[in-house]
Amino acid sequence: MAAEIAEQPSVLARILREGRPRVSEVARAIGARAPRFVLFVARGTSDHAALYAKYLVETRLALPAGLVSPSTTTVYGAGLSLRDVLYVAVSQSGGSPDLLEPLARARDDGAITVAVTNTPDSPLAAAAEYHLDILAGPERAVAATKTYTAQLLTLFLLVEAIADRDGAEAAALPDHADELLARGDEVARLAVRYRFAEQLVTTARGYNYPTAREAALKLMETSYLVAHAFSGADLLHGPLAMIDRGFPIIAVAPPGAGGAALRPVLERLRERGADMLVLGDPGAVALGQVGIALPGAVPDILSPILSILPLQQLAWNLARERGLDPDQPRGLRKVTETR
Amino acid sequence: MAAEIAEQPSVLARILREGRPRVSEVARAIGARAPRFVLFVARGTSDHAALYAKYLVETRLALPAGLVSPSTTTVYGAGLSLRDVLYVAVSQSGGSPDLLEPLARARDDGAITVAVTNTPDSPLAAAAEYHLDILAGPERAVAATKTYTAQLLTLFLLVEAIADRDGAEAAALPDHADELLARGDEVARLAVRYRFAEQLVTTARGYNYPTAREAALKLMETSYLVAHAFSGADLLHGPLAMIDRGFPIIAVAPPGAGGAALRPVLERLRERGADMLVLGDPGAVALGQVGIALPGAVPDILSPILSILPLQQLAWNLARERGLDPDQPRGLRKVTETR
Repeated sequence: MAAEIAEQPSVLARILREGRPRVSEVARAIGARAPRFVLFVARGTSDHAALYAKYLVETRLALPAGLVSPSTTTVYGAGLSLRDVLYVAVSQSGGSPDLLEPLARARDDGAITVAVTNTPDSPLAAAAEYHLDILAGPERAVAATKTYTAQLLTLFLLVEAIADRDGAEAAALPDHADELLARGDEVARLAVRYRFAEQLVTTARGYNYPTAREAALKLMETSYLVAHAFSGADLLHGPLAMIDRGFPIIAVAPPGAGGAALRPVLERLRERGADMLVLGDPGAVALGQVGIALPGAVPDILSPILSILPLQQLAWNLARERGLDPDQPRGLRKVTETR
Repeated sequence: MAAEIAEQPSVLARILREGRPRVSEVARAIGARAPRFVLFVARGTSDHAALYAKYLVETRLALPAGLVSPSTTTVYGAGLSLRDVLYVAVSQSGGSPDLLEPLARARDDGAITVAVTNTPDSPLAAAAEYHLDILAGPERAVAATKTYTAQLLTLFLLVEAIADRDGAEAAALPDHADELLARGDEVARLAVRYRFAEQLVTTARGYNYPTAREAALKLMETSYLVAHAFSGADLLHGPLAMIDRGFPIIAVAPPGAGGAALRPVLERLRERGADMLVLGDPGAVALGQVGIALPGAVPDILSPILSILPLQQLAWNLARERGLDPDQPRGLRKVTETR
């Protein structure tokens, strides 16, 4: 897991260098068919990448989008009217039956189908009309890290290409990722703080809400911490009641509109005496007990590709601090077969 | 809150008796415009009702559906191409600005807009082309109960009417709800068991996944328990690692396909030594340490309107057991104003 976390700058660079021609080709084919709605199907970490892509589709393509509940197909057998629908399955392994069945069904039902995987020879890649390889190289750790950021960047480039944009802002990502990962010692010192935490809430808004979800999943998988992600707005609709003095919160508020929208939530949490680790610009960081400054040079829309990095390191460090092996989470397998 | 929980059989009966003409009228108007995609926008408890309706739209109307992230409008200012889109806002109060703004924008962008509220004179009701009153009567408790089941039934009747079905299966709901609520002593005895629990996971699949979400929210709001809902499939994708011997789980597995699909998950949880309260048929209940038998006479699709009832009672009883006032959750207001 540590090695795969460290590999991310070079994976991002590889996608930018080698992935674009195929992304452009698939984007052109999709664009020519002018989809009017977009659906995503995914599970686990890939579901967080799909959620990010849903935001992109709404803000960059101005198309309505949804996340499919696989059970409507696999449990209830529903077929859908999918003319003019772009249907995107996101999966690291391309091997989970509960994505394959809905995707194959969607193709039969008339959707434009795309599989985004790290495994070009997978059943999911074969079942879709178009396949995008995220070029992350073999991932051995059960807790996905480099495949997550590779999915985010690939989906960003795809959406930008459909919108006839070149995604040039992404060029600086590998260098920024490198700089951020180099501050691993800072993260290791912060991890100590959570040695005896039993539960934790992560929160963010907008493009980084998937970051909060993914950070919570990493902490659950590797450190067995009960970590619960909320969008900042949802947190105020009820769950706020359980936050009392000293309750640990990790907030992701990078420079930009999403981070700014989280500010009032951070202020409410501070009033309640929550213990906050804030990742973001200096103003946001100042609202927490501890913080990690995120680079401001990258636009809001790309910030999720960076802001997850210290949180992956946090999960790894915390597992080690607790005497656990982050490479061998109990009870999990690399490919999860659910229906 | 206790009074409003108890009122639910009569609210359901009122909707069946008085709500249908308006539901049919709105369904006819929607049907005539043949929507091809359905979006829902909601927050908190209403978001769980919207999630239930999303399943209904997929399985009964065979239309793709999505849950809107309000922040794409309120934070990023995105407008969407919404021709042929049915856009449904679900809100008890009809007063939250972060629903009003996206709904008004959706109407401008060409969507067929519907507001489902308990407040006919609310800004949201006025902003939508069509309004459906859920007829629950004034709700005073901060923790929503009767408005939730009223939303579920109203949305069920709406979807059935659009599909040219009469929803006759719903007729038995008020009696079943009455019988289930009459078993409140059984629930009160179970609540004692969670007196010192600090965290808990709720799980279900399919139509009852929203039940798991809503039960977790009630427990967070009233008992300040850190309660985390997972679809059964998602639970196996990572979070399973944090479940160890004695970890408290509440599983909702009523008779039918959704409950059957949860079985393998319950078996995995049992292997890991989790402490399970199972709501469901006798076979599912037998997998847990404790259980609540759910009536089998109601079809799977309507079971969420019943299965939440003992869980509302559980949240209320647990709050009292902990010396908390379930009618005054700390830090919350009845109408949450987020953007």
